[in-house]
Amino acid sequence: MRRAAVLCAGSWGTVFAKVLADAGAGVTLLAREPDVVTSINRCHTNPRYLPGLTLPDRLDATLEAAEALRGAELVVIAVPSQVLRACLARWAPLVEPSAVYVSLMKGIELGSQLRMSEVIQEVTGAAPERIAVVSGPNLAREIAAEQPAATVVASVSDRVARAVQAACWTPYLRPYTNPDVIGCELAGAVKNVIALAAGMVEGMGFGTNTIASLITRGLAETTRLGVALGADPLTFAGLAGMGDLVATCSSPLSRNRTFGEKLGRGVPLAQANAQQHQVAEGVRSCRPVLDLARSLDVQMPITEQVERVIHEGLAPLDAVKELMSREPGPEYRAG
Amino acid sequence: MRRAAVLCAGSWGTVFAKVLADAGAGVTLLAREPDVVTSINRCHTNPRYLPGLTLPDRLDATLEAAEALRGAELVVIAVPSQVLRACLARWAPLVEPSAVYVSLMKGIELGSQLRMSEVIQEVTGAAPERIAVVSGPNLAREIAAEQPAATVVASVSDRVARAVQAACWTPYLRPYTNPDVIGCELAGAVKNVIALAAGMVEGMGFGTNTIASLITRGLAETTRLGVALGADPLTFAGLAGMGDLVATCSSPLSRNRTFGEKLGRGVPLAQANAQQHQVAEGVRSCRPVLDLARSLDVQMPITEQVERVIHEGLAPLDAVKELMSREPGPEYRAG
Repeated sequence: MRRAAVLCAGSWGTVFAKVLADAGAGVTLLAREPDVVTSINRCHTNPRYLPGLTLPDRLDATLEAAEALRGAELVVIAVPSQVLRACLARWAPLVEPSAVYVSLMKGIELGSQLRMSEVIQEVTGAAPERIAVVSGPNLAREIAAEQPAATVVASVSDRVARAVQAACWTPYLRPYTNPDVIGCELAGAVKNVIALAAGMVEGMGFGTNTIASLITRGLAETTRLGVALGADPLTFAGLAGMGDLVATCSSPLSRNRTFGEKLGRGVPLAQANAQQHQVAEGVRSCRPVLDLARSLDVQMPITEQVERVIHEGLAPLDAVKELMSREPGPEYRAG
Repeated sequence: MRRAAVLCAGSWGTVFAKVLADAGAGVTLLAREPDVVTSINRCHTNPRYLPGLTLPDRLDATLEAAEALRGAELVVIAVPSQVLRACLARWAPLVEPSAVYVSLMKGIELGSQLRMSEVIQEVTGAAPERIAVVSGPNLAREIAAEQPAATVVASVSDRVARAVQAACWTPYLRPYTNPDVIGCELAGAVKNVIALAAGMVEGMGFGTNTIASLITRGLAETTRLGVALGADPLTFAGLAGMGDLVATCSSPLSRNRTFGEKLGRGVPLAQANAQQHQVAEGVRSCRPVLDLARSLDVQMPITEQVERVIHEGLAPLDAVKELMSREPGPEYRAG
């Protein structure tokens, strides 16, 4: 890969741009803030999103999408899920016809219930073979510090998956390919709901067994939904599933975990909401995930309880009691 | 289940006896120490292994295996892996002919490379249909404190799995059935090796991404070995796999994690060994797991590096470099 564009220069976008540059590509970051462009181009830093990090020389920034996209073989997108459609509508005409789209985004579009790669397809008309998804236990600050991590590059095209893998393989990031785009994207979207639940359990003062049981069963219900949508169950046991979930649930930096913890400690919903600068992603994705599950007749008991806590004011302890009192069955249902 | 025997009264055995009693059975614990028998029978406590815990009334203890086993429909065994064969040889003639064996043990017998349920079959002549395995994220002290947790009851007989499930279902322990005995036992045995590796990574000061990536890839190589032995890959994504692994790797109580952490911090092998009261299980099982993998032509790169650190004195940081520099491939190999 010789040239890549990364849209936009938030923390994960900036760090992924560094990864691509470290792996050998020339990278242009699209930023919205003039001060970010200036500091990247003059000082190789992005103090607004990643104070302290020195960016590689072969990485520059611009305010102009056309400039970022000109000649870019790889178009990496890292914008909030709910603005992707609007951004893409502006960018798509500027993208090189043979460029590959790489989504770093985790979420489901409200209303349409589409995954991010589906929105890309719908808006740009790109074939699924021109799209890849990168997902895994990849907290931006730790990748920035070059702490070793692994990730998944998913694409229905093995050729594209391998090209993106090569484009982001560095001594500190180890990318594996996986053909299961649906599984990788769904795991990322539901993860935040399970992280909310894990935070609640932590906030209630429960220990390691409870959290490990909860995230395992949370992953089991995510897998059931994934399989109903055509995903491979093994993807959920992998880096984009279990790996990302474990990292998110262990990290004190996760907004979802922190918000859940407050509720678990007994902070009333309205007060917890008021204390957040930004809505935790899991709060937003809870309802569309549950709607999707219901439309496919998939049981998601943990997601259901999270929804009741978040939107109906159910006490977290009552949610736990409800979950524990259900008649226990087989670990995996037949079929 | 009316009567159960639990052999012996270590911490997990004692706590599981409490679970069975709380679920309604009369339980007799076999203990080796007269003071343990006395305190259980007179004061409903086991201060040697579980100070502070009050045991249920319908639980008593004895020094005599014959007394514990008389009339017991469930024979629960929780002894160290490497003494199971010798213990069973004494106990087997005393077991009721229709009793069900339940193994709480995690490990592989040195030399024979047999799983614990296989040792039970070999020594007692019991059919596989009379054996169940219980495994999951079940740190004894937290179950003792009745913190909510889930677990797996595995048996090739669905009837037996459901009977054991009913026998240990309490408001704080939620047992799921699973027909995959091989997978549950193997996950438990390899877990300690991966926990050693996770401890090393923690000791080296790496963060959440690194640990999450390591345990996910550790589980992936465990799954490969399991599949080669006839296990269901999904078991490894479940409570006996991911669940137990996550609990062990997050718990500061785990001997394996603690030992790995010392090596990661640069404590020389001999010194770390000298500081341990008891050999960490992963140190013992590393070699038989690797032998098993090699005999089946299964690649286990993380286990291999752990073996080299533990037995050949390789520096943990060099092990990480080695793991990261391998050519990355697909997340799951075909077939």
